[in-house]
Amino acid sequence: MSGISLIPLTGICEVEPGDNLAEHIWRAMRADGVMPEQGDLLVVAHKVVSKAEGRVVNMAEVKPGAEAVRLAEETGHTPELTQLILDESEQVYPYRDRGILMSRHRLGWTCANAAIDHSNAPEGQAILLPLDPDESARKLREALRERTGVSMPILISDTHGRSLREGIIGIAVGCCGLEAVKNYVGRTDRFGHRLNVSREAVADELCAAATLCMGQADESVPAVLIRGYAYTPAETGSAPLKRKPERELFRPACDRIVKEGGNSL
Amino acid sequence: MSGISLIPLTGICEVEPGDNLAEHIWRAMRADGVMPEQGDLLVVAHKVVSKAEGRVVNMAEVKPGAEAVRLAEETGHTPELTQLILDESEQVYPYRDRGILMSRHRLGWTCANAAIDHSNAPEGQAILLPLDPDESARKLREALRERTGVSMPILISDTHGRSLREGIIGIAVGCCGLEAVKNYVGRTDRFGHRLNVSREAVADELCAAATLCMGQADESVPAVLIRGYAYTPAETGSAPLKRKPERELFRPACDRIVKEGGNSL
Repeated sequence: MSGISLIPLTGICEVEPGDNLAEHIWRAMRADGVMPEQGDLLVVAHKVVSKAEGRVVNMAEVKPGAEAVRLAEETGHTPELTQLILDESEQVYPYRDRGILMSRHRLGWTCANAAIDHSNAPEGQAILLPLDPDESARKLREALRERTGVSMPILISDTHGRSLREGIIGIAVGCCGLEAVKNYVGRTDRFGHRLNVSREAVADELCAAATLCMGQADESVPAVLIRGYAYTPAETGSAPLKRKPERELFRPACDRIVKEGGNSL
Repeated sequence: MSGISLIPLTGICEVEPGDNLAEHIWRAMRADGVMPEQGDLLVVAHKVVSKAEGRVVNMAEVKPGAEAVRLAEETGHTPELTQLILDESEQVYPYRDRGILMSRHRLGWTCANAAIDHSNAPEGQAILLPLDPDESARKLREALRERTGVSMPILISDTHGRSLREGIIGIAVGCCGLEAVKNYVGRTDRFGHRLNVSREAVADELCAAATLCMGQADESVPAVLIRGYAYTPAETGSAPLKRKPERELFRPACDRIVKEGGNSL
């Protein structure tokens, strides 16, 4: 019976800044009796990567500026969280709602609240994305290869909302070792047509699958081994998932609103 | 070793209008030696559901009206395909691009090209979504229960693009037997906070996972059995995934453009 297995790694204890995450994962693999094999890949929740890398901010130490104070009134966020979002963003979008500040993250994602998480963080703290999640993935791959003898693609996952559907899903924010977007361009279907839908975001699908094992309220499964998925090796990282601003849907409408000096509400 | 297994059903032959899809799937299960167990669920690609239900249109028989002809010039679609999109839509959105006509589908999805597929269809034909995908799922569940003795939740999947990320992913368009959006409202994380992200679209994540087994160019895996996922039983169908128009991101910007009589480009 072929197919794909999603194997949760349980027993990863609380990760602290400065911890060796590979060592945490390796210990969990041995405790769970899960030995990586050639062809496996690993999805790791960004929270534990960020924590190990010290990307945790004490909110009391954030000094909000004037723009943060103004935007905080529109979104209902605290001025401190709003300042953090601004610090992590290249550009704030003209979209405000209670609890949502859309922006272009410095890493090239357009997302809500600059992907800053304050659940699953100790009181008064917030967790930012890793400085360079693709590099985090590569380092983790190397550290795990030294321990397991297997060089596995690594995906770093987060959960995000969607503009047109309800609910959050798992997506990839960091990637190494596999083609994040599988390209069907030029391939034909069984009737000999060129496929009209041609690029599948497999890195996001793999993270969505792993998120089913992770749950939301319980941090005890921050890593999931995926076995049996025939990935295409590549070293293009997460870049293929990033949509250029000019290709964003509804972007022209937003630009027009910006030009007129308003916001979209 | 607990976890989730994604088990592809191979050997489902070409589905024709009027076929008994449950019989196709049951035959494939026996050929593959995959016997459903209590707790399993099944993801089925909408294409085979639509084909079995005769939701296949001969493009030569479509008579495009004036609006279709006008919109076809903006999108690069044929007037015939544009007419089909209009027929399947409640409202066309003020967003046009080469190859994309955004609309609100009569089923309540906001998506590109009314989810009409003309790859994986014989030349000159297009495949529409089932008339009522939740009802299709319920009928398939009952027909498979009669054959297998197991009442399984059924998800009907499609692939779609995202407004802010590159690449398509699998999502759910029909659902029965499980809670499509898992609700964490009122739950707390390990630090005792209320979770700030509280609703997980597990039906979409399950379809994304199954899509990894299906591939795009090969229709030989139109169904994937998922084993080991602890779903929450529910009979609310796909409705929880549908975002109300007023909650769509960037919707206010679009509404403003409509009021001004323009389109977003």
